[in-house]
Amino acid sequence: MAITVVGSVALDSIRTPKGEVEDILGGTALHFSNSASLLSEINLIAVVGEDFPKEGFEFFYNKKVDVEGLQVISDGKTFRWKGYYEKDMARAITIDTQLNVFETFQPKVPDKYCGSDFLFLGNIDPELQYNVLKQVNHKKGAILDTMNFWIDSKKQQLLKVIKDIQVIVLNDQELRDLMEDDNIIRAGKALLHLGPQYAVVKKGEHGATIFGPGDEYFTLPAYPIHELFDPTGAGDSFAGGLVSYLDKKGKLSFENLKKAVCYAIIVSSFNVEQFGVKGLEKVTSKDVKDRYRQYAKYTTLPEI
Amino acid sequence: MAITVVGSVALDSIRTPKGEVEDILGGTALHFSNSASLLSEINLIAVVGEDFPKEGFEFFYNKKVDVEGLQVISDGKTFRWKGYYEKDMARAITIDTQLNVFETFQPKVPDKYCGSDFLFLGNIDPELQYNVLKQVNHKKGAILDTMNFWIDSKKQQLLKVIKDIQVIVLNDQELRDLMEDDNIIRAGKALLHLGPQYAVVKKGEHGATIFGPGDEYFTLPAYPIHELFDPTGAGDSFAGGLVSYLDKKGKLSFENLKKAVCYAIIVSSFNVEQFGVKGLEKVTSKDVKDRYRQYAKYTTLPEI
Repeated sequence: MAITVVGSVALDSIRTPKGEVEDILGGTALHFSNSASLLSEINLIAVVGEDFPKEGFEFFYNKKVDVEGLQVISDGKTFRWKGYYEKDMARAITIDTQLNVFETFQPKVPDKYCGSDFLFLGNIDPELQYNVLKQVNHKKGAILDTMNFWIDSKKQQLLKVIKDIQVIVLNDQELRDLMEDDNIIRAGKALLHLGPQYAVVKKGEHGATIFGPGDEYFTLPAYPIHELFDPTGAGDSFAGGLVSYLDKKGKLSFENLKKAVCYAIIVSSFNVEQFGVKGLEKVTSKDVKDRYRQYAKYTTLPEI
Repeated sequence: MAITVVGSVALDSIRTPKGEVEDILGGTALHFSNSASLLSEINLIAVVGEDFPKEGFEFFYNKKVDVEGLQVISDGKTFRWKGYYEKDMARAITIDTQLNVFETFQPKVPDKYCGSDFLFLGNIDPELQYNVLKQVNHKKGAILDTMNFWIDSKKQQLLKVIKDIQVIVLNDQELRDLMEDDNIIRAGKALLHLGPQYAVVKKGEHGATIFGPGDEYFTLPAYPIHELFDPTGAGDSFAGGLVSYLDKKGKLSFENLKKAVCYAIIVSSFNVEQFGVKGLEKVTSKDVKDRYRQYAKYTTLPEI
C-alpha cells in the first residue's frame, strides 16, 4: 500500500475574515500528504528551496512521508503564494505568486516509487503530469487534479494526460470550462468519453458528485461548517482523503469510490476549520467516524 | 385536509435555450396549485383580468382547485411576465413585467377558507401576506416564500409577517441578503430567531437544506436533471410539493418536513422538464415513487 504524489510544496501567506498568517506550510502535495497520511504511506515528488523551514521537514517526517523524491535546490527559494479570501470565502484572491524553484521544476521519480499502487497527479503543468504518469507506472490507478489555468493555456496537453488516467477530480466551474457546457450533469457524463473511468466534481459548500460508466452517479452535500477558517488546501486534503481511502480498500471501483468521496468530504471538513495544516493535526479515526455518523444523520433520505 | 394559497396567477412568455412560448399559464399560486393538487385540496386567493383564458379556468377545474377566492376583474388585464434564461438557466432575466390587475390586488378571503389546515403565503407584498395570514387563521401551519425585491424594499413589513409563520422557504441568495451573512449555515440558524420554527433553503441545482430548532439540520442534493427545459415555477412547484405533503401527513414536525422536502425535490424535478405546467401534467404517484427510488440510490451514504 503506497501512494505517489506529485505537486507543489509551498509557503503560504493567507488572510481570511478569521485572521492572517505568514509563510505557513502549504501547497498541493503537502496538503494532500497531510490527509492521505492518516491512512496510507506517501511518496512525495516535489521541489523546495534552501529556505524551506525545518518544521516542513519535520512535518513530512512525522507523517512518515517518503521524501526521496523531494528535491532541495540549494541556491533556490521555495514557491510562495500570498492571497486572501473575502466574506463568503468562495474564492481565493491572489496578491502575489513567486514560483521560485517551482518555475523550472523537473520531477524526478525515484526507482522505488515506480509501481506504486496509486498515483496522484496534483495540479501542475499537464506535461509534467504526463511525464510522471509514464515514469511511475502505477498498479491500481492514477487520479488527476487540474485547474482553469491549464484548461485555458494547455488544453491539448491536458487532454493527453486525461486520456490515460482513471479518475479526474475537478471543481464544477473547471468542469464547465473544460467541457464547454454549463450543465454539470451533461458535462460530467461527456468527460468520461475523454478517457477516465470516473469523474469527481467538487462543489465546495455544495458537496460533490461522482460520474461513472453507464448510469453510475452519486451525489452528496457538504458537511456543514459553522466556522470556516481557511479554505486553502481544502481540495487537496479532499483528494488526499479520497486516494488514501481507495488505497486502503486496495481497488478502484464505483462502490469504493463512493465511500472514498464520503470519507474525503469528512476529512477535508476538518482541514478548513483552522489555518494551513493545523485543522487535521489532532484528528483521530474516532473523530472522523463521529463526524460521519452526524453527517449520515443530516443527509439520509427518509422513506416517503 | 385543505391548503389555502395566496399568490400570483400570470401569463408568462418565456425563452430558454430549449425553445420559446407565449402567454402560457404561470404565476406563483398557479404553479403551487399544479403540484400541491396531486395530494391536497387547494383554496386559491388570487386575481386575474377578463383576458384570462378559458384553459386557465379549466386548469383549476381539472385540479379541483377552489376558485371562490379568485377575483376576476372585468375591465382589467392579467399579470404578465416576459423573460428569458441564458445557457446554464441559473437566473431569469426579465424583459417586461406588466402587473396589470395585480398592481391593486387586495386579497379577499372567503369565509370557507378560514381555518384551513395549512396556508401558503406565496411571494407577494409582505403587507398582503400579513393581511391574509391574519384572516385565514390556519389550524396547522403557515409557510411563507419571499424574494429579494421585498427583502430590499419592505424588510420591516417582511420581518413582521415572518415573526408569525412556522416555515419560511427561500433561496440561498435571499437567505444571505435577509440575514446579511454569507455563511448559509450561520444565517439559516439565525433566521430561526426571527420567528419561524423551520427554514427551508432552496439551492437550485445544489438541492435544499432545512434548519430546525436546536441542532436539527437536514440537507440533500438535487435530483439530477439531464435536460432542463424551463426553470420557471420550479420554486413554486417545490413549495406546492412541500406543503401538500405536510397536509397529507396532517402535522408539522421536523420528521414530516424532511420527508416533505424530499418529496418536493422530486415533484419539482418533473416541473422543469417541460415549459410551464406541462412537466407535471401526466405525472403519477408511481412516477414520483420510481424517481424517489432512483434518487435514494444516487444519494444514500454507504458505510465507511
